[in-house]
Amino acid sequence: MATIKDVAKEAGVSVATVSRVINKSPKASQISIDNVTKAMAKLNYRPNAAARALVNQTTTTMGVLVGDVSDPFFGSLIKSVDGIARDNGKHLLIGNGYHNAEDERRALEILINSRCEAIIVHAKGLSDEELIGYAQEVKGMVFINRHIPQLAERCISLDNRKGAYLATEYLIRHGHRKIACISSTHNIEDTVQRKDGYLAALSDHGIELSKSYIEYGDPNSDGGEIAMTNLLSKSLDITAVVAYNDYMAAGALTTLDQNGFKVPESISMVGFDDGLIARFVHPSLTTVRYPIEIMAERAANLALAISRDEVIEEETAVFTPTLVRRNSVHQR
Amino acid sequence: MATIKDVAKEAGVSVATVSRVINKSPKASQISIDNVTKAMAKLNYRPNAAARALVNQTTTTMGVLVGDVSDPFFGSLIKSVDGIARDNGKHLLIGNGYHNAEDERRALEILINSRCEAIIVHAKGLSDEELIGYAQEVKGMVFINRHIPQLAERCISLDNRKGAYLATEYLIRHGHRKIACISSTHNIEDTVQRKDGYLAALSDHGIELSKSYIEYGDPNSDGGEIAMTNLLSKSLDITAVVAYNDYMAAGALTTLDQNGFKVPESISMVGFDDGLIARFVHPSLTTVRYPIEIMAERAANLALAISRDEVIEEETAVFTPTLVRRNSVHQR
Repeated sequence: MATIKDVAKEAGVSVATVSRVINKSPKASQISIDNVTKAMAKLNYRPNAAARALVNQTTTTMGVLVGDVSDPFFGSLIKSVDGIARDNGKHLLIGNGYHNAEDERRALEILINSRCEAIIVHAKGLSDEELIGYAQEVKGMVFINRHIPQLAERCISLDNRKGAYLATEYLIRHGHRKIACISSTHNIEDTVQRKDGYLAALSDHGIELSKSYIEYGDPNSDGGEIAMTNLLSKSLDITAVVAYNDYMAAGALTTLDQNGFKVPESISMVGFDDGLIARFVHPSLTTVRYPIEIMAERAANLALAISRDEVIEEETAVFTPTLVRRNSVHQR
Repeated sequence: MATIKDVAKEAGVSVATVSRVINKSPKASQISIDNVTKAMAKLNYRPNAAARALVNQTTTTMGVLVGDVSDPFFGSLIKSVDGIARDNGKHLLIGNGYHNAEDERRALEILINSRCEAIIVHAKGLSDEELIGYAQEVKGMVFINRHIPQLAERCISLDNRKGAYLATEYLIRHGHRKIACISSTHNIEDTVQRKDGYLAALSDHGIELSKSYIEYGDPNSDGGEIAMTNLLSKSLDITAVVAYNDYMAAGALTTLDQNGFKVPESISMVGFDDGLIARFVHPSLTTVRYPIEIMAERAANLALAISRDEVIEEETAVFTPTLVRRNSVHQR
């Protein structure tokens, strides 16, 4: 590969001149710019991004930390951030935190060490305290799907409680009272908030149900199958189910199908996320929409603005979920 | 943020000594190492990754170019490459090429400029010639899901033709003869190879069908709905369909359901990819498995080995698809 010295020789100028041209210094003359540009093209020389980053003391990199890039939910998040990055001439460094503190810490350290000055963080394993520490170090760090009171202005979150409340109330308005809840075994705030929303909707409508109506599983389709199987075993006369997410709902649908229950005729189902699979399952899933795309765009724009010391306009920080009606809920 | 000068002052040593400690130079004394390490911890100093890359003349970054990170197929590819990167102490820079030459070129330039010395490339827009040019520049560049004869030893691909042949033959063995093909409008080699496989299987079994049995659409569920609608309009007495991918199959299933056709009782369906949605659609989809995870691992290991001038072991370069039997095919 050609070096900066080769370019200088080819252009008949000093290495310092080449450096000035590459770094767009106002001291570079037009004739130097022309000669160096021509020489770089001829030698197929690529200005070293690492060297440029050192000289400019800024990089063109943004970072994003997600749980698992192979989950389409995070794929959508990353795609939205990538769009904002492209609009701003930056490229994206992506870290997987796999929902645990150790991997999240490791991925965040890499992003920080790589001098990402704007970082969008989706972390569920690290404590508020540790995240506050990181946030103090990197001013353009913004948290998504998390609310940290001390960093409220740098948090973009969803009202999870309201989402589950909406789903449960929608079933109540359709005549259901024996409404089960399929919750997640992941010990994160989303789990608590969604369960709270379910309980609050029941309570506000004077419905009292025993704890037996809540079952738990891993937040994937296997977990949904297990939780639904457990619910069926308990002979509870359930007419509807609120699931933690669409994957769990899909697993529950499989279990119901295998056990001869028609959805929605005998049991109604509501999911959460409105992810990729919601419209492919049978019946297509009535679910709570998680507006991850616009939330991720907001987070990316906010992170860039803070990193540039721009005045931050007052905008939505806590987003509201909405209900998407498809074919899995039946009027009783 | 603390600088290297602050660390040197705190540790009572020169900047050069701090640099030696950071870069693990054998010239650094144990007492220097202790003092500098303590000072870095106290000041919360992070050795600048860009500076270290310059000094070491190697980076700890691998690159991967995909079509669209929000497609779970590419999510799986990235996750596999990330696993190999982690095992090798490297982190991952990801570019989206969005299946067109301009975006692929732009993303590749960024990865190369960022000094990724191992890059896994999934490109469908750029020509063989242009990719050969890039490959000459970056020796640790490996291509996935593409076969370039001049770079055969750096290409990991799938036998797409065989996959479609398998799917079609499976239907023939189940008594089907009027087998339609839902193909893609994307002008890439996958499209050509899969259509060839379909035609070859028909021909090898003495089945002659008119061109009317092939319909086209965008390679997503909407495209599948349109192609299936067009096929139904043509009154062809179809008993089975081979779809370009699972998304098109899912769209075709929707159209069949809306038009009162039972799958598999009146029409059988086979997909391609065995992606996330294959087991969630109704009925669950019999499909051709694209072993993207092991292909991506192989590509990542190969790229690292080449970048390190290691001797490359003879291993599989062209992977073979297999058939995954679920519930969308019926014996006639």
